[in-house]
Amino acid sequence: MTRDRGPYPSLVPLYPLVYDGMVRRALQEDLGNAGDVTTDAVISPDETAAGKIIARVPGRIAGIDVAGHAFRCLDPALKFQAEVADGNEVQAGDEIAVVSGSARAILSAERTALNFLAHLSGIATSTRDIVARISAHPCRVVCTRKTTPGLRSLEKYAVRAGGGSNHRFGLDDAVLIKDNHISVVGGVAEAIRKVRGRVGHMVKIEVEVDTLKQLEDALSENVDAVLLDNMTVEMLTEAVRMTNGKAVTEASGEITAQNAESIAATGVDLLSIGWLTHSAPALNISLEFGIKL
Amino acid sequence: MTRDRGPYPSLVPLYPLVYDGMVRRALQEDLGNAGDVTTDAVISPDETAAGKIIARVPGRIAGIDVAGHAFRCLDPALKFQAEVADGNEVQAGDEIAVVSGSARAILSAERTALNFLAHLSGIATSTRDIVARISAHPCRVVCTRKTTPGLRSLEKYAVRAGGGSNHRFGLDDAVLIKDNHISVVGGVAEAIRKVRGRVGHMVKIEVEVDTLKQLEDALSENVDAVLLDNMTVEMLTEAVRMTNGKAVTEASGEITAQNAESIAATGVDLLSIGWLTHSAPALNISLEFGIKL
Amino acid sequence: MTRDRGPYPSLVPLYPLVYDGMVRRALQEDLGNAGDVTTDAVISPDETAAGKIIARVPGRIAGIDVAGHAFRCLDPALKFQAEVADGNEVQAGDEIAVVSGSARAILSAERTALNFLAHLSGIATSTRDIVARISAHPCRVVCTRKTTPGLRSLEKYAVRAGGGSNHRFGLDDAVLIKDNHISVVGGVAEAIRKVRGRVGHMVKIEVEVDTLKQLEDALSENVDAVLLDNMTVEMLTEAVRMTNGKAVTEASGEITAQNAESIAATGVDLLSIGWLTHSAPALNISLEFGIKL
Amino acid sequence: MTRDRGPYPSLVPLYPLVYDGMVRRALQEDLGNAGDVTTDAVISPDETAAGKIIARVPGRIAGIDVAGHAFRCLDPALKFQAEVADGNEVQAGDEIAVVSGSARAILSAERTALNFLAHLSGIATSTRDIVARISAHPCRVVCTRKTTPGLRSLEKYAVRAGGGSNHRFGLDDAVLIKDNHISVVGGVAEAIRKVRGRVGHMVKIEVEVDTLKQLEDALSENVDAVLLDNMTVEMLTEAVRMTNGKAVTEASGEITAQNAESIAATGVDLLSIGWLTHSAPALNISLEFGIKL
Amino acid sequence: MTRDRGPYPSLVPLYPLVYDGMVRRALQEDLGNAGDVTTDAVISPDETAAGKIIARVPGRIAGIDVAGHAFRCLDPALKFQAEVADGNEVQAGDEIAVVSGSARAILSAERTALNFLAHLSGIATSTRDIVARISAHPCRVVCTRKTTPGLRSLEKYAVRAGGGSNHRFGLDDAVLIKDNHISVVGGVAEAIRKVRGRVGHMVKIEVEVDTLKQLEDALSENVDAVLLDNMTVEMLTEAVRMTNGKAVTEASGEITAQNAESIAATGVDLLSIGWLTHSAPALNISLEFGIKL
Amino acid sequence: MTRDRGPYPSLVPLYPLVYDGMVRRALQEDLGNAGDVTTDAVISPDETAAGKIIARVPGRIAGIDVAGHAFRCLDPALKFQAEVADGNEVQAGDEIAVVSGSARAILSAERTALNFLAHLSGIATSTRDIVARISAHPCRVVCTRKTTPGLRSLEKYAVRAGGGSNHRFGLDDAVLIKDNHISVVGGVAEAIRKVRGRVGHMVKIEVEVDTLKQLEDALSENVDAVLLDNMTVEMLTEAVRMTNGKAVTEASGEITAQNAESIAATGVDLLSIGWLTHSAPALNISLEFGIKL
Repeated sequence: MTRDRGPYPSLVPLYPLVYDGMVRRALQEDLGNAGDVTTDAVISPDETAAGKIIARVPGRIAGIDVAGHAFRCLDPALKFQAEVADGNEVQAGDEIAVVSGSARAILSAERTALNFLAHLSGIATSTRDIVARISAHPCRVVCTRKTTPGLRSLEKYAVRAGGGSNHRFGLDDAVLIKDNHISVVGGVAEAIRKVRGRVGHMVKIEVEVDTLKQLEDALSENVDAVLLDNMTVEMLTEAVRMTNGKAVTEASGEITAQNAESIAATGVDLLSIGWLTHSAPALNISLEFGIKL
Repeated sequence: MTRDRGPYPSLVPLYPLVYDGMVRRALQEDLGNAGDVTTDAVISPDETAAGKIIARVPGRIAGIDVAGHAFRCLDPALKFQAEVADGNEVQAGDEIAVVSGSARAILSAERTALNFLAHLSGIATSTRDIVARISAHPCRVVCTRKTTPGLRSLEKYAVRAGGGSNHRFGLDDAVLIKDNHISVVGGVAEAIRKVRGRVGHMVKIEVEVDTLKQLEDALSENVDAVLLDNMTVEMLTEAVRMTNGKAVTEASGEITAQNAESIAATGVDLLSIGWLTHSAPALNISLEFGIKL
Repeated sequence: MTRDRGPYPSLVPLYPLVYDGMVRRALQEDLGNAGDVTTDAVISPDETAAGKIIARVPGRIAGIDVAGHAFRCLDPALKFQAEVADGNEVQAGDEIAVVSGSARAILSAERTALNFLAHLSGIATSTRDIVARISAHPCRVVCTRKTTPGLRSLEKYAVRAGGGSNHRFGLDDAVLIKDNHISVVGGVAEAIRKVRGRVGHMVKIEVEVDTLKQLEDALSENVDAVLLDNMTVEMLTEAVRMTNGKAVTEASGEITAQNAESIAATGVDLLSIGWLTHSAPALNISLEFGIKL
Repeated sequence: MTRDRGPYPSLVPLYPLVYDGMVRRALQEDLGNAGDVTTDAVISPDETAAGKIIARVPGRIAGIDVAGHAFRCLDPALKFQAEVADGNEVQAGDEIAVVSGSARAILSAERTALNFLAHLSGIATSTRDIVARISAHPCRVVCTRKTTPGLRSLEKYAVRAGGGSNHRFGLDDAVLIKDNHISVVGGVAEAIRKVRGRVGHMVKIEVEVDTLKQLEDALSENVDAVLLDNMTVEMLTEAVRMTNGKAVTEASGEITAQNAESIAATGVDLLSIGWLTHSAPALNISLEFGIKL
Repeated sequence: MTRDRGPYPSLVPLYPLVYDGMVRRALQEDLGNAGDVTTDAVISPDETAAGKIIARVPGRIAGIDVAGHAFRCLDPALKFQAEVADGNEVQAGDEIAVVSGSARAILSAERTALNFLAHLSGIATSTRDIVARISAHPCRVVCTRKTTPGLRSLEKYAVRAGGGSNHRFGLDDAVLIKDNHISVVGGVAEAIRKVRGRVGHMVKIEVEVDTLKQLEDALSENVDAVLLDNMTVEMLTEAVRMTNGKAVTEASGEITAQNAESIAATGVDLLSIGWLTHSAPALNISLEFGIKL
Repeated sequence: MTRDRGPYPSLVPLYPLVYDGMVRRALQEDLGNAGDVTTDAVISPDETAAGKIIARVPGRIAGIDVAGHAFRCLDPALKFQAEVADGNEVQAGDEIAVVSGSARAILSAERTALNFLAHLSGIATSTRDIVARISAHPCRVVCTRKTTPGLRSLEKYAVRAGGGSNHRFGLDDAVLIKDNHISVVGGVAEAIRKVRGRVGHMVKIEVEVDTLKQLEDALSENVDAVLLDNMTVEMLTEAVRMTNGKAVTEASGEITAQNAESIAATGVDLLSIGWLTHSAPALNISLEFGIKL
């Protein structure tokens, strides 16, 4: 059994192939059939300008390349210069990037670029908040499959940018036996045994347990990880003691900024937090425009 | 000039054509190449069951049809029975819908269906919270283009389900002259005049103003609406007085649950709130499974 | 109420993102699985050449960038040099553009490029014909939603290139209450009142009226525009008098090159002409090939 | 060598798979993000109604199934009853189809459905006009690759509905050596010989000839068909005499309703007419609404 | 460490959502713009018929639902009755399925349906051949990522239908450190340590080793599995002895029907065989047509 | 009647537009949501390297440009240098191409690039094997529509790279009356006559015959080609004698490397071989990595 608690390495960038379709769809969604009627009426196509992307509040940045891609999808001649890297901290007023070229293209792509950047930076910021709170403990923060439809690979990346780790990316990359599965099969051990022999040799198995009795059953079946769902700090402490390193322990259920540290202090390996991807507020980021070149 | 402050009518459902692609992409994103390896190992394809979709907290529901579509995209034979309608209030523990049929299909589609439903219901709930706080005033809540990339039409719908109204759906359906446009052109009046004669006869014109002087300029050009950006309650009161019904007045900038009522009390026609779509937390909704048919 | 009758400004180019998918689909439609079997058999892949795109008849050009994009989608190394700009007039024999590079790629993309260019230039030419006929009057020509499926944004652009203006781009950007809506609701005024309060503050309202009584009802409800459908010149004159600038007046129904001037002379603000986009004949444009480089 | 001059058989319907994507794209193009704001404000989602699709002028119908598909893509519960079949003649006022069900869905899909039907029926009508004019001669009318981008298979079908035949469907299904190819290779015979041995055994070869000398060269190489481009009636008569049934003869270039009969009288096998697909005016068809069920 | 050697369970069917796009693309690829010109000329659209899908040689079937989907995508009214299930054995002449309804639709979809069925059954058949040869040993057959582009999920399914198991479905669901990775990092142990702490807790780690020294390094780092690449039977025997159950052992490299048994006899847990998906010959399956209904 | 037996000319490259979508889908299929978890953990994004693509066995190459496109779709900065051209022979150990740049991108795209290259080169190699065996005879090898779904244009190209020719590319580009058609109509001659007059003048007609009597019927109807299905060498010899150059003769059915020469010796014009595209084993090609730049 492996306990991986080290810090996440320097963030590996995503290939544009991964988000190219998302960005184009978002631009088309905003432009519609008529395009940017305001800018087209006010700004000459020949006008050039530059704009600064500015953080309005402190936070952790994610999605700079995606934002740059949005600008260049509209006009490949736009120059996009990142001033900070994904995973970096910014303070209020910090410059994140400078975009320059056709004033019209900058203004037409602005909202799409910022929508990606603010959404992903919001996830990174919320993640690093939780990660910071448990820094005294050898415990990782992981996200879930509760992601915004269509944006999973980007949101998982944003969690990494915030210093968190990723749980499953989909239904397809690991086994997680949940309460609903158990209720059909009739018991934790039965469900695990049913999985054994049916999944590939490269697939790990985790099981959700609500009670210490279920945990005992799971451990007796040598699962790779246990999801300790909605347990009190006392139960978690006992669960970690019972597990004794034989499986990765993951606490789940209503974990907040307030209780994260006390849960991490129980010795669990992972805190599983769905709201990092489904409810983290966007980071306040804007484009300050009008620097004539 | 038109002042539309009436209550929003009974919610009109979206055509499935609008969200069919989003739902299929989300399911494929979750299934990957290998599919639901857990369910496929644990649950027989012949097993039937039923699950209840339950609200864990009070809120306003949006997206029931989208959730039902997700289940049926995986298995058209699944039965999905909505117990409440979009736009309805639910209490903690309320049943939102019942889905029955293949246990395997229900479990494999569950997360995608709930991701849509929880996200959209979260927007509807946050919207109705703000709407409720200003109910004493003839003032509407409107959302912005700060939406999640790829989901705009659904998120705008969720705002309506929450009792809010929609501002522009994209860059294409109305003119909104913003500070960045004005900075290029050199002045509010110049920008408005530039737009006049260049846009179609069915396109309304709104202009963002930061000062009362800019407001005066805008009103002298007979715009349809003015976006009063980041003004104090005192400035807003004066702005409403100056406008005197000659344009729709829209307050914008850092509007929260705390200050919404005091801003609405200034007499503005609209509160423009970006966080309804970019930062509203998801509503806590889950699937309770295992009712054998 | 706004009366926008000024000339359309210098044409703003479309972003390639808007038509990239249309062009690729059209090329694939022509190439099929086997590609250009003639050219592949006759022309060596290494052969270079140049071709001139020539107008065979006088007309107004639209779609040059789209044609250039078609050539470059097949071979990014092709050089495409426009000799005139969209919105320009050409005479029979005028050179519109020169394309040079791989002879094979030029020949394989030729038909797709010309199909776009001839179709859009045909719309621009028909539009400017009508616009020219009413130039003595402060009256605009507008197109409708009767467009070729899948090409709306391009066709609307071609109308602008011809000096016309655009009515609605879709069902989504303005309200137009038509006879079919009125027949369900029971009356013009009832329909307008039903719309009031239900649509956003940035959405204008137009209503189709067939009689002067309906016009009276519409004006009493302060609509933004009235569509005067199938009225005689006498009725239109009276309608303009009654409206007296309180709404934009739009004449519609069987407007042709023959009667356009007399209708414009009634003082209506707009002539709405569906055949600009559904029935304008293509402009005769061809590629003269074989200039060895 | 084959001479196929028989009448076209009863029209074979297209599989919906062929046009499903075109129809969905067209509906989404019209609905945008906001949907049909007029209908949604005026018509209750529960309201049912029926509408008749009526021909306003005489013509030949094509595209009824496509129109029906458009209605059902928006609402599968809509009933669409065709009263005439594709390829049938209608008179002004004739009922083409009846659609019934949700009033809202009928109104929202109406324009898309009619845009397809009017465009395709326009092509069928123009085709049958020309076909009728040459009915005394054993001569067919064929269309070209000058089609509207993205709609080729539908437009080719419409030509068949009008009694015409189809030339090549794309660059991929037959060899047509044109002037541009010949100019590169240096001669008709050389080009034909170059093609021989390089294309599959199921691919026919046609060559464009501008002079009787070129025709002689082509015939000496045993091509399957010759495209007699821009020849006078006298030249065509001589060309037919020279060919003497050894190849299919196809006249091309500026063939109009006026000169079609005289060209057919020369004895050519085919009249090739590009404007059938790129410039045929739409047929005037409308939806008469409001028959309560 | 887990040793999963049990027999594969009853095959779980794929959701049509998984292959719907592949099937539609394949049908469109075959129909082109002109459709099935032969059938459309010979068979009346009203003609009904039935056809039997017959195995011409013995084999293992996979892809029946995909074939049925192909028929129904062309005509939803076609009836498709499977006579055997995926994973079943057939003998030469056995009836696999009966399809009935429109003769035209059956003939037009036949080739696409059979292309899927023959390809997938070929993979299943080759897999079960190898599986049968090693049945005396507790050893599984697994496939690789050497799949036909665009068909991975179907081909992986076909391997399961043949009694094989699946290795990784993509680059994303497990770590496999290969020789190329090791050559960059400088050593097996270094590479494994680098991975530790950087991948999620649900991701297993396998490493490719070419020598027993590398195996020793890998085992000292507690990997989940070792890929014993291109080793002799003697080396494999020693490798299994050294590993002693501490990791899953997987033999790879030039495994054929001839040597599979002797390799399995070394005690390795898995035989990894790329040619199952990239080179298995299609199963000879045809449609016998013409049973009038 | 035309007899085309000449050698295929120098291979004409495919336009990237043809395979761009296939390549992107294949890369996304392999990367999933999580990307290349191994490489991302082991290789720094800044590391550069070079890799050689090497043939492990002798063969004929096809698909080099497709492989290069796969690398560049992931990282446009990668340099891809082909050392041999499509249609060239390679020996075991020969270098096919060198790719250099980001080590990470090379490793992540490697499998997709090789899957295309090995699959297409396998088809080219099997084709040239058969072509070589019949080189003493004026007989061509042709492929069929039994292709891998979604890859038809690439596989047909690979057959050409192997020195073979292409039969129909789809149902749309020629008539092939098969046994199933004949069984419905009632006879060979009837079927041919039914086709006459119903297909375009550029469409050739081939008919499948199983007996010499059927051949006689077909020849009496002047078809362009006859498919002699499952005939013995004696029957084929007699069929060629009977046909006497009046139609292209094509032998079909169970043609293998063993019997190809004896069948070609009968004098038939074409050998039709389905397994070239559905069952040719992939060519063994690999990437040798780690040459530091």
